[in-house]
Amino acid sequence: MARVLNFNPGPATLPLAALERAQKEFTDYKGTGMSILEHSHRGKDYDAVHNEAIGLLRELLDVPDDYHVLFLQGGASQQFAVVPMNLLPEGKSADYIVTGAWGKKAFAEAQIVGKARLAATTAADNFVRLPKQEELDLDSNAAYVHFTSNETINGVQYLDKFPETGSVPLVCDMSSDFLWRKFDVRKFGLIYAGAQKNIGPSGVTCVLVRKDLVEAGRTDIPKIFRYKTQADANSLANTAPTFSIYLMRNVLQWVKDSGGLEQIEKWNREKGRLVYSFLDENKDYFKSPVQVDYRSVMNIVFRLPTPELEAKLVAEAAAAGFVGLKGHRSVGGIRISAYNAISVEAIQKLLAYLKDFAAKNG
Amino acid sequence: MARVLNFNPGPATLPLAALERAQKEFTDYKGTGMSILEHSHRGKDYDAVHNEAIGLLRELLDVPDDYHVLFLQGGASQQFAVVPMNLLPEGKSADYIVTGAWGKKAFAEAQIVGKARLAATTAADNFVRLPKQEELDLDSNAAYVHFTSNETINGVQYLDKFPETGSVPLVCDMSSDFLWRKFDVRKFGLIYAGAQKNIGPSGVTCVLVRKDLVEAGRTDIPKIFRYKTQADANSLANTAPTFSIYLMRNVLQWVKDSGGLEQIEKWNREKGRLVYSFLDENKDYFKSPVQVDYRSVMNIVFRLPTPELEAKLVAEAAAAGFVGLKGHRSVGGIRISAYNAISVEAIQKLLAYLKDFAAKNG
Repeated sequence: MARVLNFNPGPATLPLAALERAQKEFTDYKGTGMSILEHSHRGKDYDAVHNEAIGLLRELLDVPDDYHVLFLQGGASQQFAVVPMNLLPEGKSADYIVTGAWGKKAFAEAQIVGKARLAATTAADNFVRLPKQEELDLDSNAAYVHFTSNETINGVQYLDKFPETGSVPLVCDMSSDFLWRKFDVRKFGLIYAGAQKNIGPSGVTCVLVRKDLVEAGRTDIPKIFRYKTQADANSLANTAPTFSIYLMRNVLQWVKDSGGLEQIEKWNREKGRLVYSFLDENKDYFKSPVQVDYRSVMNIVFRLPTPELEAKLVAEAAAAGFVGLKGHRSVGGIRISAYNAISVEAIQKLLAYLKDFAAKNG
Repeated sequence: MARVLNFNPGPATLPLAALERAQKEFTDYKGTGMSILEHSHRGKDYDAVHNEAIGLLRELLDVPDDYHVLFLQGGASQQFAVVPMNLLPEGKSADYIVTGAWGKKAFAEAQIVGKARLAATTAADNFVRLPKQEELDLDSNAAYVHFTSNETINGVQYLDKFPETGSVPLVCDMSSDFLWRKFDVRKFGLIYAGAQKNIGPSGVTCVLVRKDLVEAGRTDIPKIFRYKTQADANSLANTAPTFSIYLMRNVLQWVKDSGGLEQIEKWNREKGRLVYSFLDENKDYFKSPVQVDYRSVMNIVFRLPTPELEAKLVAEAAAAGFVGLKGHRSVGGIRISAYNAISVEAIQKLLAYLKDFAAKNG
């Protein structure tokens, strides 16, 4: 078996150890005579997996006791609606910081649910940077402030500081950089993340949410969409996406076994440093549009001299075992998605390939 | 490896052939060097799986061209809300036929979303039967009539005829008996089914819906919840639960390879006949509460002489390799869930065991 180097933007490559563990016990989980996905979501075997996944997340991030860890369905796109359905009551307004394609979608959905205000956007700069704190036009009475910590299409990321919102709860779509490093959960009212980048397969969404926000949530919406419904039931109010959660558990265990988020962060920063140094050293050929302070280490976007060369690179690299380098169709170019399961060595091999490609196609 | 006989009510046992196919290619799908769950939901490899699953469903059920086949997330519990969000506009009312625990939940959620009327219920009979056509108090102006084709907890099933609703669209929660046999899709405006009984793992929900209902759907709800959003995008408006759909594809292929739904129905009817004949022949010991005409062939519920004997049976049977026989906690007793992947031979073995148990514990 020859595994390729998979730079897909999500669903994305997962640690081989997590996959092989699943493969080995796929038809007979721990000698129970059935697959984990044939186990009842209310049985003790699945329950142990479910709680282990929650426990690992709590441990890796030091999640405070006054936060729920929820596993939901529908992806971040569903949370675009469910966040305001829960947290944006009649008569209140929510602030949105829009720094790319995903933030735009979240803002648009919130405007259907209730009153949402644009607190800042870098659309005029083609999303090549993030707004500075002083550019934020914040409403001190807002129900919450929403932002996107990493934009996969435009390749901008909040690398160090998050927006400061005082006493207004900060809500973050962290789908594409959740667990790229440790961070202070207390800065947030609510965090949501589709699993299919750093932490698992598609089909499960992690939500970390402060318990008081859950308690104060709207009760005039369908029960299934209330955070309280799943919080009260440990995310088992209805049948959970058990296999997705099981596989996420395997990935979280791999993070822990790898040395935890401190080690993961070191690798991720080194991967980013390697790629951006390479791009800067070869800027006659590779153009990185994103301003230096905001360059994502998860999704690294750049252009070649011509679209024809970009298409050639994508095709030839795939044939050579470097898959998924095509930029998003809305922006074109090249994109290296370097999530947690991409190793430093994989990046080094890719950069050697890119150097060679540039030399041959100069 | 010793696979047990798994009578779990869902997530439930799946055909071993479908699981082994997934296991074999789990870390290298078709020589692509990655797992199917690491493939992009917009790439050609996953796309082929996605469309094959849709094609198999269309073929097995002869789904007419004026119906969409959608793959959604959130389970039937989410559809309890999403159906009225789409199909129940202001000023209209929907009719609900409540024949068990799931119908009750669907009705309760609809009442939060809009105006919902109880068209019939068998609650006064403890849900041991279904209402006859003449018992239905139908509103000819209703937006739709909703019913549940099989109730897993109470063990009642619409085996032959469905409710007649004239020109009012019939909406069915078919989660627990979808694909137990072929049926006329044209009788329905909308059908939804969580996959985790007959057709796959948890995490994906099939929806068959008439195209004109999708076009007329409400547009004042979040985009992600509009059927039109997913219908226009072939269920890929956002990242689909790709592995769940892949595994469902494997199960649908198994159905086809087994001889299609005609053969599946023969097996299911034979399984039901075997169990209910056994119960009736041993009615001093095994009490089947459900009226004969409505006895589910998917979830067969019965009582033993005492709760202590029931607990003993559940424990001893599990030790002997017959797992998942405990009745739902809300009703107690014993439940045999005999979904498509349970063979006639598995039922014969179980009945031999039950006969022996009764003899020893008479």
